[in-house]
Amino acid sequence: MKCLPEVAQLAKDHGALVVVDAVCTLTTMPLQMDEWGIDVTIAGGQKGLSSIPGVSLIAFSEEAWNTIKSRKARQPHWCLDALRAQTFWGSQQYHYTAPVPGILAIHEALRQICEETLPVRFERHRTSSIALQAGIETMGLQLFVPIRDRLNSVVAIQTPLDTDNAKIRKTMSTRFHVEISGAFGLDIMRIGQMGEQCRSQNLFKVLYALGMSCRQQGVDLDVSLGMAELERNLVIDPENLVD
Amino acid sequence: MKCLPEVAQLAKDHGALVVVDAVCTLTTMPLQMDEWGIDVTIAGGQKGLSSIPGVSLIAFSEEAWNTIKSRKARQPHWCLDALRAQTFWGSQQYHYTAPVPGILAIHEALRQICEETLPVRFERHRTSSIALQAGIETMGLQLFVPIRDRLNSVVAIQTPLDTDNAKIRKTMSTRFHVEISGAFGLDIMRIGQMGEQCRSQNLFKVLYALGMSCRQQGVDLDVSLGMAELERNLVIDPENLVD
Repeated sequence: MKCLPEVAQLAKDHGALVVVDAVCTLTTMPLQMDEWGIDVTIAGGQKGLSSIPGVSLIAFSEEAWNTIKSRKARQPHWCLDALRAQTFWGSQQYHYTAPVPGILAIHEALRQICEETLPVRFERHRTSSIALQAGIETMGLQLFVPIRDRLNSVVAIQTPLDTDNAKIRKTMSTRFHVEISGAFGLDIMRIGQMGEQCRSQNLFKVLYALGMSCRQQGVDLDVSLGMAELERNLVIDPENLVD
Repeated sequence: MKCLPEVAQLAKDHGALVVVDAVCTLTTMPLQMDEWGIDVTIAGGQKGLSSIPGVSLIAFSEEAWNTIKSRKARQPHWCLDALRAQTFWGSQQYHYTAPVPGILAIHEALRQICEETLPVRFERHRTSSIALQAGIETMGLQLFVPIRDRLNSVVAIQTPLDTDNAKIRKTMSTRFHVEISGAFGLDIMRIGQMGEQCRSQNLFKVLYALGMSCRQQGVDLDVSLGMAELERNLVIDPENLVD
């Protein structure tokens, strides 16, 4: 993510506002809206926050908010009108029925994040991601993203040659009850390791399921060696052991 | 609601499609989309369905769906595009992250509705509404809606002369922990009695809170007589007694 401030600067140089979809990354790695020149950050309750899907978060820079306030065109949809949402949250005017359980779920997720603290949470994701990447590569699979551009919350894996990753994922799901995703337009598999998913017991489970399911498709992998490498790299969080 | 088919016919005569917001009424009283000429019915998980807010339901007539399919203008917002939603639910194309807990909550609410059956549920709302209306009027308050147009799920009450209904509702909320609503642009109070709220113990609770809070504002009411009238009219549902 080192390149985000540079992208933002480039956009600014051309008079554009910068919108960041942080649903995967919020609270899993640093995001400095002001310092990096980001105008709008959006996220959902799921993924990084490890709460439930169905509620979204949005934050605006002063510049973005001024743009919203001064634009002449009416919003085409009532429910996506940020100005109405603002007056609603300011309790001055009704906008919509609030998704109460979703808001309570986000509140609890944020409480847990505050309890863990952001630096500890960032480090947990960083350590876990490095460990999982090492386990996958040692097992004999190839990662998709160059090391400098990798996220700490999602690992992208090249589909092994001559295999169908949908079949691998189907085995993972039906036999091991572990669901990972494909991708839109790329022949890769992606493991999300965000929030509570990013705990040692889950990492071992997903790596084992991935390795065994690839082997079932005839891919020659050393699953044991991968598991050992994951273990070697994983600095066990004492909090995990309590779980 | 006798007038809805007539309104729908009038709209049809002028070539318009008919959209019904059924969030308050769905499963609390009959709604015949096809027979009444309704093209689109929308509802939320809350209110009539007595589930949680944050998930919406929508149903289209064949005519409405053909109109959607044949229109040339692109939808201004991705997430409100019914065609995309349709392909998503048909599992052919990703549209958005599904609000899983909300969908499970609706599923459970619908299961309970099926268990109760619609005729029993309609009758429970009808009986309860008549009883609550009788209790309110006998107590000495005036209802806002003429009897032929009343819903079985919401009761609208005239604010007593020379009082501020926000103060009445504030007392109900802080002293009795019962929340009812005002209205947009009308000086009335509204009691929602939908789904699980529409149980005898809740009706007694809200009527008592309303009566006592009005009296605190100096309104001359016979709360006891109102409570007795509610009891007299309320055919106790044996299911309630189990609760």
